[in-house]
Amino acid sequence: MTLNGEQYASDIFQNGVGQWCHDLATELWPINRSLTGPGLRQTLERLGAEIPSLEVFEVPSGTQAFDWNVPDEWVLRRAYIEDDKGNRIVDTMSSNLHVMGYSEPVDAWMDLEELETHLYSMTDQPDAIPYVTSYYKRRWGFCLSQTARDQLLPGQYHVVVDADLGPGVLNYAEIILPGETTEEVFLSTYVCHPSMANNELSGPVVTIALAKWLSSLPTRKYTYRIVFVPETIGSIVYLSRNLEAMKANIKAGFNITCVGDNRCYSFLPSRNGATIADSVAKHVLKHTDQNYAVYSWLDRGSDERQYCSPGVDLPVATIMRSKYGKYPEYHTSLDDLENVVTPSGLEGGFTALQRAIFIIENDFVPLVTTLGEPQLGKRGLYPDISVKGPANDSRALINMISYCDGTRSLLEISDTIELPFWVLFEMMKPLAAEGLIKRI
Amino acid sequence: MTLNGEQYASDIFQNGVGQWCHDLATELWPINRSLTGPGLRQTLERLGAEIPSLEVFEVPSGTQAFDWNVPDEWVLRRAYIEDDKGNRIVDTMSSNLHVMGYSEPVDAWMDLEELETHLYSMTDQPDAIPYVTSYYKRRWGFCLSQTARDQLLPGQYHVVVDADLGPGVLNYAEIILPGETTEEVFLSTYVCHPSMANNELSGPVVTIALAKWLSSLPTRKYTYRIVFVPETIGSIVYLSRNLEAMKANIKAGFNITCVGDNRCYSFLPSRNGATIADSVAKHVLKHTDQNYAVYSWLDRGSDERQYCSPGVDLPVATIMRSKYGKYPEYHTSLDDLENVVTPSGLEGGFTALQRAIFIIENDFVPLVTTLGEPQLGKRGLYPDISVKGPANDSRALINMISYCDGTRSLLEISDTIELPFWVLFEMMKPLAAEGLIKRI
Amino acid sequence: MTLNGEQYASDIFQNGVGQWCHDLATELWPINRSLTGPGLRQTLERLGAEIPSLEVFEVPSGTQAFDWNVPDEWVLRRAYIEDDKGNRIVDTMSSNLHVMGYSEPVDAWMDLEELETHLYSMTDQPDAIPYVTSYYKRRWGFCLSQTARDQLLPGQYHVVVDADLGPGVLNYAEIILPGETTEEVFLSTYVCHPSMANNELSGPVVTIALAKWLSSLPTRKYTYRIVFVPETIGSIVYLSRNLEAMKANIKAGFNITCVGDNRCYSFLPSRNGATIADSVAKHVLKHTDQNYAVYSWLDRGSDERQYCSPGVDLPVATIMRSKYGKYPEYHTSLDDLENVVTPSGLEGGFTALQRAIFIIENDFVPLVTTLGEPQLGKRGLYPDISVKGPANDSRALINMISYCDGTRSLLEISDTIELPFWVLFEMMKPLAAEGLIKRI
Repeated sequence: MTLNGEQYASDIFQNGVGQWCHDLATELWPINRSLTGPGLRQTLERLGAEIPSLEVFEVPSGTQAFDWNVPDEWVLRRAYIEDDKGNRIVDTMSSNLHVMGYSEPVDAWMDLEELETHLYSMTDQPDAIPYVTSYYKRRWGFCLSQTARDQLLPGQYHVVVDADLGPGVLNYAEIILPGETTEEVFLSTYVCHPSMANNELSGPVVTIALAKWLSSLPTRKYTYRIVFVPETIGSIVYLSRNLEAMKANIKAGFNITCVGDNRCYSFLPSRNGATIADSVAKHVLKHTDQNYAVYSWLDRGSDERQYCSPGVDLPVATIMRSKYGKYPEYHTSLDDLENVVTPSGLEGGFTALQRAIFIIENDFVPLVTTLGEPQLGKRGLYPDISVKGPANDSRALINMISYCDGTRSLLEISDTIELPFWVLFEMMKPLAAEGLIKRI
Repeated sequence: MTLNGEQYASDIFQNGVGQWCHDLATELWPINRSLTGPGLRQTLERLGAEIPSLEVFEVPSGTQAFDWNVPDEWVLRRAYIEDDKGNRIVDTMSSNLHVMGYSEPVDAWMDLEELETHLYSMTDQPDAIPYVTSYYKRRWGFCLSQTARDQLLPGQYHVVVDADLGPGVLNYAEIILPGETTEEVFLSTYVCHPSMANNELSGPVVTIALAKWLSSLPTRKYTYRIVFVPETIGSIVYLSRNLEAMKANIKAGFNITCVGDNRCYSFLPSRNGATIADSVAKHVLKHTDQNYAVYSWLDRGSDERQYCSPGVDLPVATIMRSKYGKYPEYHTSLDDLENVVTPSGLEGGFTALQRAIFIIENDFVPLVTTLGEPQLGKRGLYPDISVKGPANDSRALINMISYCDGTRSLLEISDTIELPFWVLFEMMKPLAAEGLIKRI
Repeated sequence: MTLNGEQYASDIFQNGVGQWCHDLATELWPINRSLTGPGLRQTLERLGAEIPSLEVFEVPSGTQAFDWNVPDEWVLRRAYIEDDKGNRIVDTMSSNLHVMGYSEPVDAWMDLEELETHLYSMTDQPDAIPYVTSYYKRRWGFCLSQTARDQLLPGQYHVVVDADLGPGVLNYAEIILPGETTEEVFLSTYVCHPSMANNELSGPVVTIALAKWLSSLPTRKYTYRIVFVPETIGSIVYLSRNLEAMKANIKAGFNITCVGDNRCYSFLPSRNGATIADSVAKHVLKHTDQNYAVYSWLDRGSDERQYCSPGVDLPVATIMRSKYGKYPEYHTSLDDLENVVTPSGLEGGFTALQRAIFIIENDFVPLVTTLGEPQLGKRGLYPDISVKGPANDSRALINMISYCDGTRSLLEISDTIELPFWVLFEMMKPLAAEGLIKRI
């Protein structure tokens, strides 16, 4: 039995994986991502610099994917509002969030009353810029803080959305890391949100870090399929092109999102709720933070909506830090890399997913080779004197052995005796070396 | 997909179904029902006036039915106690409950001491007349309030039970409403209690109202078998004559009793506990009154004792308002049409059973016809702008669709997403119209 | 249906079974039991005086049993420590616990500093002598109270362990009581602890009392395999010699330990957790003491470790009073026959196990012979008058009958209606006499 993983992590990320992820997120922050367009391509190229085997695909606008069609490509150059004195009221130079995603081009003068019908702000978070999109209905709009909006005076305003919205392509990227078997572990994250940190930059930076770690392993039991897609339409397009292979090969998968803040851990199950991905995720989170939040399938809201849809039914669960929709900064300009997402938050997200992968790589069904308990004392694995006292480490050892009956996986045994898989995996090593345990 | 039911109800009951039921109960109140006899026949005839296809059956005394024999017929003309001055102390002219059910004839003078051995009253409910019967052991007796009993003075009393108790017949009635299939929904209620309102008049009046509603439907998926029997011996006789057909055809059934007061809702499971009738009843009650009382099979006490007995094992559950034995007026003269049973109470009982039947008629296994989520936005079924905010109605829609995988019935999906079946059934209609859902 | 058991118990134990067990334990108290040696043999011989068919076996040192080897035989004659004035500091004449179990021979003078490395005491129980053994590593040592140890002054001490530790035999005993079938009930207890009462003398004395009771029965449905072994190595040796027959025949078994104090009842499941032994034990304990302590397989610590090990997997559960390791006197000289183990404690342990055996002997699958409820009234088993009031005894009767559908054992029915098996068994008798119930 070999240990695939974990110990390699620290070697490959200088200053630690959390700082590495945070640095990369800082670099990606200014890029104006959307469902399509140059910002999306620029993001995928930057990620490809970390993993040369990352391949970028493009799909023409209008292509059908299941019940959907690829939308037109949106190329935003700049958007702003000026008053009649030439003051810039809002400007995408200061934040990509200031323009509604997929705004159609406009260049017009109008009075405040008309302008108001195109403005979006939040009275309950008056200092934050909200994130608003209108992908499938032609509109234009600007997003700004309620505080800034309240200062607008009656008068004429010049609104400019300098953009193209027309036929082009949608892009996504894929990394395949071959393993000893064609069975796959699937990792998916999305790359269509501008300038927000937990939802979404934490997702692609932790995913590319996991890809680097997996690439560095001398062996992998499973093949890894790792994709970076625009949310919803991207996963639908990807599924429509790869469904047969995915259904045939994927053993477990994770949708990677909201893995960057340091406030809590969260679990969202697959639709099935009892896949390997679910078991592994719950095990990892229980032993990472016993107060982790458990959500239901009804709380879902990301690409698992597609991956677990009827007829697709992939075993995809979600490990998060603070879940989308459940932290106050969600979908606003407050979801940033200073106050929300931190190196330690990212490291926690990375480690939880790494542990999940470690379990999937290393789980097996052990069988003790003796009838009755093995005599551990003669092998130095059990106290050679019996004195009354509290339970010692050998207690966990004999508990583990007692369940090695060839019907339970090591993960199931870990859950039964309520210790982490990675602790039991270490405890297995001397037993295997003594020939006391074999794999079924 | 067609909607069978519900909307027809208000058309056929002037002043509403609750008032209609209450009026009919008021008309039936004075009739002295028992296991057998003219009061039972008169009751069945009155019910038959509402549904001409109601058929009355008669079974001779002594007929064997499983382990039982049909008892003699009891024909009570009048019963009273007079003191030696000719004052009527108790008299069935004022309440049918004053005579013990199945009292044998007597015409005798006796002193108070001897009379006391034939009197029944309740110290804990001193103003109520108790309901007492002795069907299978020959006795005679009188029931009166404790208050009245306490006023009896020593002296001679003339006791008269003017009755016949000898060979005759037992009666019951049956309505068969044919449906598209020979599979049946079974409704049973009992008609042997004199002058009590929740237990029992609410049962036959709500049942005949359901029969009228079902009769008015242009189509019915299932055939309806609706019976009115004296409790216990009547259901045993009915089973002994129809068991084979009932076991072959009945898909779900309800014993209808105690459906007339307005204090709570109650559920009593079948012996099996997991039949369609149980699932439907719990679903209806959960969405009618989230504090509904749940009883166990061990709390049973009506004809489900026979319908669910070993070897009979019909899928019969019970939906009630206040359960027999669990409200203070039960089996006393206080269980009346003024203070206990009300039009709104009856309407609640009717509606719960109607909803249960509606679900049975309309449940099906839906399958979404797309892979991935359907694009609801282009069909006007989903917001065309994405703004941060609370869950909207479209959330329930996509939750429902996510479970339309061809393995779950709409009722099961309703339970999973914790919304009423009748709400999901309405949500299905535009999806079906768009070809997004098909029946399995 | 015949009742096997229970009523015979009081006949055969003068002054009651609890006192009988306590007297026998008092007699066995002074004998210095260990894994091997003359004390073990003397104990088995004394038990054999109660049941002549008890057979004692011997197994040579070094014999392999699964992963283990039978250890050398330990023959202790006496052990003591003297100071240089000839005062006996500790002496096995006053307590067998004063010498570490399996101490190797020694006869030497040493100073206090060296002596201390061979002394065992407990600071948290300063007046108790701890029980310490070193079966598989050669050592010698003395156990004493912390109070006595604190009084030792610097100086020279004479330590003597007058013992042999070399090739010999290990002994165990077996009783086979044939029954009507070759299916077996298995009872195991251990006989290797010196001078401790709840753990362990309660075990062998209650077990031999059960054997006497079982021997006295005119018939037994099952064959009884009853063994007295040194703990761990003894059960491993026994299994290694009898595994095939045990796996083929044993229907249920109990490891009998800690059945002598009067403070609580405890349950420890088999590894499987859902064997007949588990169901029966939980049923008995629930109806003996509703606050009984429930432990998990992870809390195990006796021969069930071997009997339930992977590949052995016998259906062996444990019924206890205060569980080993969970009462303060455990494994010390305070675990005595005065303050801890009492006649009433032993009687409770005996009765719980007797009830468990009674259930195993008498459980069956009943089927009611009527369709619908039987008419109990005509057989005098149900009230012949119906009056409002609280549930009466006939309620339990009809509840029981309602579950006699040929799919549930009487034990399962007892659990469902939450009454003791032994109560339902009595209720069955008149029904069986009336032909209303038959066995499946």
